[in-house]
Order: sequence, then structure tokens, then C-alpha cells
Amino acid sequence: MTIEVPQLLTKDDVAQIILAAKKETGMSWEDIADKISMSPVWTHSACVGMNAMTEEKAKALAQVLGLPSEVIDVLVDSPTKVWEQTVPTDPCIYRLYEIVGVYGPTIKALIHEEFGDGIMSAIDFDMSITRVANPKGDRVKVEMSGKFLGYNSW
Amino acid sequence: MTIEVPQLLTKDDVAQIILAAKKETGMSWEDIADKISMSPVWTHSACVGMNAMTEEKAKALAQVLGLPSEVIDVLVDSPTKVWEQTVPTDPCIYRLYEIVGVYGPTIKALIHEEFGDGIMSAIDFDMSITRVANPKGDRVKVEMSGKFLGYNSW
Amino acid sequence: MTIEVPQLLTKDDVAQIILAAKKETGMSWEDIADKISMSPVWTHSACVGMNAMTEEKAKALAQVLGLPSEVIDVLVDSPTKVWEQTVPTDPCIYRLYEIVGVYGPTIKALIHEEFGDGIMSAIDFDMSITRVANPKGDRVKVEMSGKFLGYNSW
Amino acid sequence: MTIEVPQLLTKDDVAQIILAAKKETGMSWEDIADKISMSPVWTHSACVGMNAMTEEKAKALAQVLGLPSEVIDVLVDSPTKVWEQTVPTDPCIYRLYEIVGVYGPTIKALIHEEFGDGIMSAIDFDMSITRVANPKGDRVKVEMSGKFLGYNSW
Amino acid sequence: MTIEVPQLLTKDDVAQIILAAKKETGMSWEDIADKISMSPVWTHSACVGMNAMTEEKAKALAQVLGLPSEVIDVLVDSPTKVWEQTVPTDPCIYRLYEIVGVYGPTIKALIHEEFGDGIMSAIDFDMSITRVANPKGDRVKVEMSGKFLGYNSW
Amino acid sequence: MTIEVPQLLTKDDVAQIILAAKKETGMSWEDIADKISMSPVWTHSACVGMNAMTEEKAKALAQVLGLPSEVIDVLVDSPTKVWEQTVPTDPCIYRLYEIVGVYGPTIKALIHEEFGDGIMSAIDFDMSITRVANPKGDRVKVEMSGKFLGYNSW
Amino acid sequence: MTIEVPQLLTKDDVAQIILAAKKETGMSWEDIADKISMSPVWTHSACVGMNAMTEEKAKALAQVLGLPSEVIDVLVDSPTKVWEQTVPTDPCIYRLYEIVGVYGPTIKALIHEEFGDGIMSAIDFDMSITRVANPKGDRVKVEMSGKFLGYNSW
Amino acid sequence: MTIEVPQLLTKDDVAQIILAAKKETGMSWEDIADKISMSPVWTHSACVGMNAMTEEKAKALAQVLGLPSEVIDVLVDSPTKVWEQTVPTDPCIYRLYEIVGVYGPTIKALIHEEFGDGIMSAIDFDMSITRVANPKGDRVKVEMSGKFLGYNSW
Amino acid sequence: MTIEVPQLLTKDDVAQIILAAKKETGMSWEDIADKISMSPVWTHSACVGMNAMTEEKAKALAQVLGLPSEVIDVLVDSPTKVWEQTVPTDPCIYRLYEIVGVYGPTIKALIHEEFGDGIMSAIDFDMSITRVANPKGDRVKVEMSGKFLGYNSW
Amino acid sequence: MTIEVPQLLTKDDVAQIILAAKKETGMSWEDIADKISMSPVWTHSACVGMNAMTEEKAKALAQVLGLPSEVIDVLVDSPTKVWEQTVPTDPCIYRLYEIVGVYGPTIKALIHEEFGDGIMSAIDFDMSITRVANPKGDRVKVEMSGKFLGYNSW
Repeated sequence: MTIEVPQLLTKDDVAQIILAAKKETGMSWEDIADKISMSPVWTHSACVGMNAMTEEKAKALAQVLGLPSEVIDVLVDSPTKVWEQTVPTDPCIYRLYEIVGVYGPTIKALIHEEFGDGIMSAIDFDMSITRVANPKGDRVKVEMSGKFLGYNSW
Repeated sequence: MTIEVPQLLTKDDVAQIILAAKKETGMSWEDIADKISMSPVWTHSACVGMNAMTEEKAKALAQVLGLPSEVIDVLVDSPTKVWEQTVPTDPCIYRLYEIVGVYGPTIKALIHEEFGDGIMSAIDFDMSITRVANPKGDRVKVEMSGKFLGYNSW
Repeated sequence: MTIEVPQLLTKDDVAQIILAAKKETGMSWEDIADKISMSPVWTHSACVGMNAMTEEKAKALAQVLGLPSEVIDVLVDSPTKVWEQTVPTDPCIYRLYEIVGVYGPTIKALIHEEFGDGIMSAIDFDMSITRVANPKGDRVKVEMSGKFLGYNSW
Repeated sequence: MTIEVPQLLTKDDVAQIILAAKKETGMSWEDIADKISMSPVWTHSACVGMNAMTEEKAKALAQVLGLPSEVIDVLVDSPTKVWEQTVPTDPCIYRLYEIVGVYGPTIKALIHEEFGDGIMSAIDFDMSITRVANPKGDRVKVEMSGKFLGYNSW
Repeated sequence: MTIEVPQLLTKDDVAQIILAAKKETGMSWEDIADKISMSPVWTHSACVGMNAMTEEKAKALAQVLGLPSEVIDVLVDSPTKVWEQTVPTDPCIYRLYEIVGVYGPTIKALIHEEFGDGIMSAIDFDMSITRVANPKGDRVKVEMSGKFLGYNSW
Repeated sequence: MTIEVPQLLTKDDVAQIILAAKKETGMSWEDIADKISMSPVWTHSACVGMNAMTEEKAKALAQVLGLPSEVIDVLVDSPTKVWEQTVPTDPCIYRLYEIVGVYGPTIKALIHEEFGDGIMSAIDFDMSITRVANPKGDRVKVEMSGKFLGYNSW
Repeated sequence: MTIEVPQLLTKDDVAQIILAAKKETGMSWEDIADKISMSPVWTHSACVGMNAMTEEKAKALAQVLGLPSEVIDVLVDSPTKVWEQTVPTDPCIYRLYEIVGVYGPTIKALIHEEFGDGIMSAIDFDMSITRVANPKGDRVKVEMSGKFLGYNSW
Repeated sequence: MTIEVPQLLTKDDVAQIILAAKKETGMSWEDIADKISMSPVWTHSACVGMNAMTEEKAKALAQVLGLPSEVIDVLVDSPTKVWEQTVPTDPCIYRLYEIVGVYGPTIKALIHEEFGDGIMSAIDFDMSITRVANPKGDRVKVEMSGKFLGYNSW
Repeated sequence: MTIEVPQLLTKDDVAQIILAAKKETGMSWEDIADKISMSPVWTHSACVGMNAMTEEKAKALAQVLGLPSEVIDVLVDSPTKVWEQTVPTDPCIYRLYEIVGVYGPTIKALIHEEFGDGIMSAIDFDMSITRVANPKGDRVKVEMSGKFLGYNSW
Repeated sequence: MTIEVPQLLTKDDVAQIILAAKKETGMSWEDIADKISMSPVWTHSACVGMNAMTEEKAKALAQVLGLPSEVIDVLVDSPTKVWEQTVPTDPCIYRLYEIVGVYGPTIKALIHEEFGDGIMSAIDFDMSITRVANPKGDRVKVEMSGKFLGYNSW
């Protein structure tokens, strides 16, 4: 073909660039998040292309990790979120899916009893992950907070 | 057929009995959970058949809701946990599935960075759901805590 | 089994009751919606169990159609929304699915260009369906309006 | 293999070329649509390969964005419309799928009551997306209009 | 449950009633179609619930087969068309599915070359099935005719 | 790897070569079919790799389109017929799938009534597509003819 | 509902009746097949509803097993062949599926080399199953014979 | 990446090499099988990577077709057998799948009646495909023989 | 329908009868297995219908649990083994599925290295489950033993 | 694109490097496992990327097989475990899946009877595979041991 199709820099390309830079600098996700004044959950999610950065945060990240300036626009773009397996196979992610299967109806029932018909937003949403020391073995703590959105009628 | 096949009381039957009794008494899940000194999440989950009760808790529940004594054995039985849709359709439960899809790799990365290779147990696990007042609209808070289980090598 | 499991009145039962009453009264969905001062889309959706009514609207509906009082509580309950086919087969509903497949990325791109990264809420949402006269054949007009929800970072 | 298989320019290639040109010119979809006197929805859809352009519109687009002349034939070709996930995962597109699941039977019922048995065409069809200012948060308005097609009997 | 849920007569019920009456009268689909002045394809399709009858045709059918008058309304209702297997297993129906798989892209290419971008309508559509005598073995002839619908741009 | 794996010319490669040659010559499928004295349906189907040509027809095609002689053997090979989506998404092909879903049981019933238990062969089979002028809009006519194959018992 | 929907005797009902009669008489499938002068494979297949009997064979079967005369019409009807699992789970049937997966391309290649492009018919088809004594353990022998059907071109 | 990842010769690579050599020599599968004193079914299956050769047979094949010596080890390796479509689409292979669906329960019933509970092995297994002349059209004969394996109890 | 279809006693019916009898007697699976001189794994599997009993064992079981004599024939019948979910959802069973996913290729590689190409039979197979005391928490031990079956060539 | 996206060395790349080195050295998995003082099951699993090595073991492996030092970090990384087919097709791995289907409910029942409600961990888990000589044909023995994890209530 005589026309050269331009290869646009994708969110996947940028994730590769960031992971390589992270490996080189030896920083943890918590270090990186601290440097750009954001949480580690959001920072990782935006770096692997599942969320969009503001231009300011994208510039800060580029400076912290020494990224080329071309990545900034891509970090700012709204992502298209794709996951490829209906049921995740990785055991660590599967456990979360199992929790949704087992406790989903319970979470739904308790939200309805407390708030009425509606949902916890997955958009106006934040999350943190912390380690809780425990003599029987340390625990992972996951905290999610999402705005309640009530159904409207019209 | 000349043999009468006995119809064993199932977890689904018991869930129906409990929901009818709850409706009649007008208690909320929080009320019921308080009366048997357990959390609302676990109480609902065990009542709808996704977790097993100890005999003591099953008896307490039967007393609180005026259930027939035959339900106690069923509440104590180990459940077989089945969910029928690979991708849940109810919008309230789907949002949780979406969170697993979007943030699953992030949760995995942060667990690995903090603890090494392993998972957050969905068995040695607890959860709570609370309302957080917020002037821009109240929020749902979901807190999960699960034991970290590291892979062993041999 | 010696215990009689109570059969709770379900949203499906109520839908059957309403459809039978509607047939008997000869009213259209628009007539019914007018009588309870709501839109036909929402009214039908709540009657077939995909949305919850306020107690006031449920009582109004019961009066309009001469429904037994037991249906009111069920109409007020938060529904669990289930659809059984991943890809709908009914040609009328399939055309809507096809529109999502063909125009989904376009809607997404235009929302992002106008509002930034986020979604049109399907919860804080309303819809109307009207007939538009046209000499080449009348047209169906579907209008949807949903609140824009922007992703937050934290 | 001694025979060189010619690589035909595809709709995907052309979409890449257009997106790169759009980035370079800094125009929005609305700007581009205005320049070729079409709607933004249709313009985006045709640019990403989900609809065919007339030769006149393809030429206009090539001029506006400075595209090589080889893209014109490809823009004019009838597309083969493929979407890869039965259930879309991107949250913005999923919300539309959810609307079809929840409100599909309602839309069907109301069309039938108004027009008789038939469908809203997804072919003889147009759509617009606009922003509606609202003090509680701006809203996305989606308007669809499709010709009613009644089933014939024979 | 104290409320008796009315069992509405369904299209499936009516199909059963018609098949029983047909068996009793010994008429073929062609006989029945002749009596109501319609084609056998459409007649069978409407009798098994995949298409709607006009009131006139429903009354004619009821008279021909001696059906109770309650079936008439159901025959007139707009059907919800459901097929349960994504890939049909019955060998006779599978062969048709195979034809769509093997020749679908060919039909598409030839329609586009003749008419431009668009589709053959499956709504404004009719079909006949006839036997063609052939010394090497008789053949089944299927003829379909559907209105061409061109995509519009806007 | 030190061994060079030979890349065999595939049916897909040949389809690309033919489409490029067709574009260059400006011939329609009907023109090409005429030149090799075959029908347009079969010609297109064999060119895109869904059917096998005789050597004579492959040679004729190569001459008509100026194809390299290596393509002849590949056109003659028996194809392996693969279609990738269980439910086709392209609207033009989907309409055919819908027809199989809606009218499949009807076609089956009428074949059985006319011929007894058996199928219409999709192998000993031919098809044509023609345009039928119509004042309300031209129509696409699809005619299929397949040998009836009766089940044998033994 | 005031109309009583007639319950037509189905192929499944008849299979139940035959299996009960077979149990009572103590005959094997081979015994039954001998009595009606057919093969055991075909006899079993028709009895469980996957093939149609001629009226003569259906009458013979009814006499051999003492079946009520109503079953004859049902045995003669053309069956609709449904299997419910895409991948069979029963280990005995799965082994056959595995053979199709592993050896399918080989069977295809050898048929093509011997006969040219075409298929082995599964309609004009017969099969037998026999035991072959073997000192290392007896073997199951499955023999299939189907008419070769060559693709035609037109 | 500075490390060069070695590309191991795969079974797919070897299949390509063999098919190219076969084309060049003009031998049929039967010719090749004869030369290495094996059956055509097994020979084809091992050549396309679905079975393993002994070193002796691999060497013989390499000599017959003039293959490079590196392919021998790969032919001897135990294959990982993958088939990509749950339901095969190629009409020739689909017919075999259909036979499993239609006659699977029959084969199972007859094996059980003859041998007791167990299966026909698909591992200790052989198969042949032959042409049977027939005035009404030649037939394909497939003969399979597999060891009976009875379930053990313990 | 005037013919009464006999309801044959199924393996599912018998499982219900056994579970009810087991509950009444208060015996564990190990107790029952001991009484009939078999292992608990096989005993449970046969009682829930996934394996067949010899007549002797079925009679012993009937005596131990006081079952009606009609169940004996059913316990002896060869089962049709069906599992309904491709991916099991119950967490206890899912962990086994995960082991197959994670370690399957490893088990395959080690079997091939030790035995050559072939499989571990799941038919000529036995299994035991035992508790192993461990100060860090007791462990479940699963031991499986299956005959190696080598592929044959012919 | 002007930015060069760094290609990070993946677990798949490392598996290829190890398999090539293993082939060259001629060592078996048991030899390699012995050299690094680990079990063959775990060693293979970690080498093909389904488990993580400690740095010490990764260094030992690199020395034993003469691997470049860059692979060490990758061997130490926590893997993302993906398996691509819901139902495995390779006969050797399928037999394990079949065992989970047939005996899963039995394993679950016996664990519950011995330990109460809970699971066998697939994380705190080890496995061995050994050959057991047997005059009727050698057997494969698979032994699994996993920590019992009881559900907690809260």
C-alpha cells in the first residue's frame, strides 16, 4: 500500500513506556502516587490506561518518570475500557469477582434498605487499598466509596 | 411412580420463609442482625443461602423471626453457591462487576507490591456497608477485609 | 415437606395482574400514565417490574386499574433487573442493540468531546417515545436524557 | 511466498489516518461536521468506518483534513459492521446497553400500541447528541428518529 | 399467596390449541392458508406465534379450525420473537444457518454492488417455499423478497 | 529459528489479490461472473474462499483479471469454511440470521409436510440475487434451491 | 384461564412410555430392533425422538412393546432435533466430540483427496456399533456410512 | 529488548513445512502413509500436529518428503491439542458434530447395554476412511475402533 | 392428554431419597461407605448419580439406609453425567477448576516426560480425600490415581 | 510514531528462553527441579509463567540453564494467570476438568462433612505427580494438599 498509515501512540503503548520507566527508577506505585499527590489506586489505574489524567497530573507524571512529552496527550485522552475475559482467570482478580457473585445481592439489599432504589456509582467513585497488621496473618483492606444515585421517575 | 420422593427443605425455601417473616415483622436487616449480634452483610448473605450459620445463630434467628424449627438445620448446612449470569444484569450489581473489570489489575498490582505474590482471601473475609453523609449527595461506603494468602513453593 | 413455604407475590405476578386488568379496562399505556400523572415509558417499565413506584403512585395505579391492595408493596419494592438474552432476538429490541453496537463509539466520542471523560447516567435518566408524522412514512422518535457523570480522581 | 499479496487500504487504516489528521488540525468532530455540512454523529460514525460516505462528502472531508486522495474510495465503500464484544465493557457504552435491557420491552410495547406490529428502523435512521444545561448538573440528550416499518403479511 | 394471579392466554398456548385442531381436522398448512387466503409460510409463522394476524384473518382462522373466540385477541397481539439457541441444532434449520455463514458476505457484496449501502428488510418481507420436480431428486425452492433499505446520512 | 518455514499462499491471500485486481479493472461481480460463464453468487463466494473452483474456471478467472498463475491451485483447493461470529453483527447479514430465527421452524414444517422428514441440502445447492423494481421502493429477491434429502432408516 | 390448552403428546412423552415398557418387558435394544427388523442404532434413535419412524415400523413397535395406539402418530412425526450442551459433558459422549475435534480436519482432508470438495452426508447416513473381542480388552467398533455430496457450482 | 527470545520450531511450523513439501512432491496422503507403513488417518493427524510420531516414523517421513532434520524432534513431541471453535463451522466437520449430537445418546445406550457402564476410549483408538462404490452415489465409510474402558469402583 | 406418561424414577429422585434417609439416620458419608465396604468418594458420587453401583452394592446401600427396593435398579443404571456450568461458581469447586487452569499444562508436561504421549484415565480412576493435621491449620489431601493410557498409532 | 515503545521481557518470552535452554541441555524437569532443590510440579509451573520464583531460586535456575541475567527479575514478578479456553480441549488436561465436573460435588461434600463449611486453598497448596507401577498398566498418581480455609462470620 502506498499510503503510510500513521501509528497513533495508544494507551497500551504508554503503559509499556511507564512500566519500563518505573522499573528503571525503582519507584513503587505509592512513591509515584505521592510524587504527583494522588492515590496509588487511581495512579496505577490511569497509568495502565483505565482512567484519564488531567493535563497537570500527566505533566507531573512525565516529569517524575522522565517520560517523553508525547505521552501527555495520551494520558489525558478519555480511555475506552476493555476487559477481555467475562470471568477473570487470574486468582487474585477472580476472588473479587467471586465476592460480587456471593455478596452482590446482599450489597444490593442493604443499599436499598438504607437509601431506597438506586445504585452506588462506579463513576463518582474512589477506592483505597491498605495493609492491616494482624497476628493471625496480615489482611488486605479494600475501601470503596461511591455516590448513591437514586432512580428518578418522570 | 409409586415411590414418593421426599422434598427436602432447601436454602431457597428457607430464604422465602425468612423474607415472608421479615415482611410481617417489619424489621430491617440491620434490626435482625442486631438481634442476633452479627453484621447486616453476613446476616443477609446467610439468610438468602450464600453462607452457613452456626447452630446458635440459626436458633437465634428462628426465635427473632418466629421461624419453624425445621429451618435451623438448613441454615447450618454448607451452601452450594450458584450465580446464574456470568455478567450480572441488575444495574446495582453490575456496577460492582464493572469495578472488578476496571480496577482489578490495579488492586492486584498494589497487593503484589505491598505483600508479594498472593491474593486477598474471599473466604477468611468480612465486609460492611455504611452510609456516609455528603453535602453533594450521600455516598455508599463498602469496606472489605480479607486475609492475605501468599503462594507457597515446594 | 411438612413446612409450607410461603409464596411471596413477585414483580412478575404483579405484571400479570396489571396486564389482565389493563386488557379488561381497555386502557392504553398512555391512558394509564395520564391517570397517574407519569410518562408512558416509566409507567410501563414500572408495571412490568423494571422500576420501582413510590407508594403514592402505586396506590394511584391500584385505584385506576382496580388492583388488590397487596400489589402496592410489590410495586414499591426495588426491582432486581434481569434480562435473559445477551443478544436480544426480538427484531424490535434487536434494532436498539444494533444502534448501540454501530453508534456506541460515536456517542462516546461526542460525549467526551463535549463534557470530558465520563458517562451519561442510566439511573438519573428519563426517556420518551413519540410518533412523528412524515409523508414518506411516519417515524418513531426516541428521546433520552441522562445526567452527565464525570470520573473523579483522588 | 513469491507472490506479493497486495495490502488493500481498509476502513481501519483510514480511521487511523483521519484521527491523526484531526489531532494535527485540532478540530473537533463538530468543526469537521460543520465543514462538510453533516451532523457530528454521522460524521464520526463514517470516519471510524461504521457508515459509508457519498463521494462528494468523502472529497469534502479529504480537503478539510488534508487527506491523501486514496482514502476517498475507501470512505465510499459499504462497510462491514463488526463489534467484538457481545456485552460492551466500556462504562460509557455499557450504560446504553443497559438502557436497551431495561427499557427495550417498554419501547417495544409503546411502539406497538401507537403503530401496530413493527419496528423502528435502524437503517432509515438519524441521531443527535446535545448538551442540556441543568443547575443540578448538565445532562446528555440523545435523540433518535427511525422510520416505522410495519410487518407485512402475504 | 391469597391473590390469584390471572394466567393470560399466551401465543404458545394458542399454538398448542391450533396444532391440536389442525391434527383433528387433518388439514395441511396449505389447506389452512388457502381457506384464509394467505400464504402457507405466513400462516404457519403467525399460528406458531412469530407474526401477528389482522383481526379479520384471526377470525377466519378461528372459524376454519373451530377455535374458541378467546384466541382471536392473542393472534392479533404483536409477538415478542424469541429463539433459544444461538446456533440452531435441528439439522433442517442448521442448513439455513450454514447458508447465512457461507453465503452471507456474498449476498451482502452483491446487494451493495446493485443497490449501494443498505440491507434487505426482514420486516417488509415475504417468502415462499415450493417443490421443484427434478429427475435427480426433487428440490426445495425458497424465494425471499425484501424491500431494499438504504442507509441515510444526516 | 534456522529453518525457514514456507508461507503457503492461502485462500485469504488470493481473495486480497482478486479484490485488488477487481478494483483496478473496475469490473463488477456480475461482469466477472459473465466472463467465466458462472453466476455472480457462486463467483463471489469462490473468490473470497468459501467455495472451490474447477481448474478450468480458475484459469479463466486468472486470465480475466490478470492474476499470477500461482493462484490457480489455491482456487481449486477445497476450502475450510470458517465464520467467526456465532451471531453476525453486520446489519445486512444479521437480517438473514433473523429470518432463519423467525422463519426457520416454518420452513422446516412446510418441507416436512411436502416431502416428509429430511432437509434442504446446503451442498447440492444454488442461489441467485436479483433486483425487482417496485414503485414503493425496489426489492431484493433471493432465490435458493437445494436438493431434498430424506432421512433413511436402516 | 377459561380455555383449556390441549397437551399434545410429545416425542419426549413417547420416549418415556417406551422406556417404561422396555423395562417391563426386559428386552434389550437389540431384541426390539430384531423384532421390527431394523438396526439397534436407528431403533434407539427413533425411540428417543431423534428420528422419525414409518407408520409400519411405528405400528410394529407398538405391538412389540404393547404401546397405546396414540403413540404411533408421534413416532411418525418429523422430529425437531435439539441438544442442549454445546460441549457434551457425559464422558461417553464427550469422547466422540473429542474425536471430531482431533480427527475432524483429517477426515476432511482425506475425503477431499478421495472425492474432491464435498461432505459425508449426515442425512443419507447409517451407523452400527459392535463389540470386537480382543485379548487386551474388548473394543467398541463404530462404523458410519454416509453418501458423499459434492458441492455444485452454478 | 536486548535479549533475543529464541523462536522454537512449533508443530504448526512443521505442518506448514510438510504441506509445502507434499505439494512439491505431488504425493497424496495415502502415498505418504504407504511409504512410512502407517494409515492415512494417523499420518495426516500426526503431520498437522494432532498426534506424536515415534522417532523411527518421523525419520521415515523426513526422508520421504525431504524434510530438514530439525523437524524430527518436533514430530516426536507430545502435542497440545487445541481446537478453536466449540461448534465447528466447516460444513464437512460440522456434519460429524451433528452426528455426535443426534446419535451420541444412542451410541452411549448401546455401549452400556453391551458392555456395562464405561466408554469407548479416544486414546487407545484407531480409525479408517474408505470409499464405498454405490450406484446411487459413492459413500464415505468411517470406521472407528476404541478400547472399552469400564468405570471402576473403589 | 388421555395417555398417562409413566414417570420413571430418576437418578435425581434417588439422590433425594438417599439424602433424606441419610439425614434421618444421622450417618456420615464415611459411615455409609464403611457399611457397604467402599470408599467415601465413590459412595457419594454414586449416591448423587454420577457413577453406577453394582447390584450387590446397591442392595447393601438400600439395606443400610432402609431404602425402598425400587431404587436399586436406578442405582445400577449407567448414569448420564451432566454439569451445568462451564465454569463452576461454588467457591469450593471453583478452586479445583482453578488448579486445572493453573497446573494443567504442568501435569501434562510431567506425564509426557515420564510416560510419553498419553493421558491419565478419568475412567480407570480412583480418588481419596483425607484430613492432614498441621499446626498452621489442617490441610485437605486429595489423592488421585488413574491408569496411564498411551496414544496408539496405526 | 516517533517514540519507541520499550518491549518489556514477558513471562512468555522467558518461558521460550527456558524451553530452548532445556532442549539444549537435555535435562528433564525432574533434573532441573533437583538442581534447584524444588519439586518438578512447582518448577515447571514457575518456568512457564504460572508461579513466581524467589530471587534465590531464579538465580539458581539461571545458573543451571545458563540463562541471561535479565530473566531473573521476570521470574520473580507476580504472574497474571490467564487460561484461554473455558473448557480445555487438550485430552490430557480435559480429563482433569472432567474429574472436577464429575467429582467436584463429592469433594465438596466430604470436605464439608470433615471440616465444616469452607474450601481447600488453591494458594496455600502443593502438588506432586508420580508413576505407580502396576501389572495391569502403570498409573499416574496426583497428590494435592491445600490448607483448609473455613468461612468466617462477623
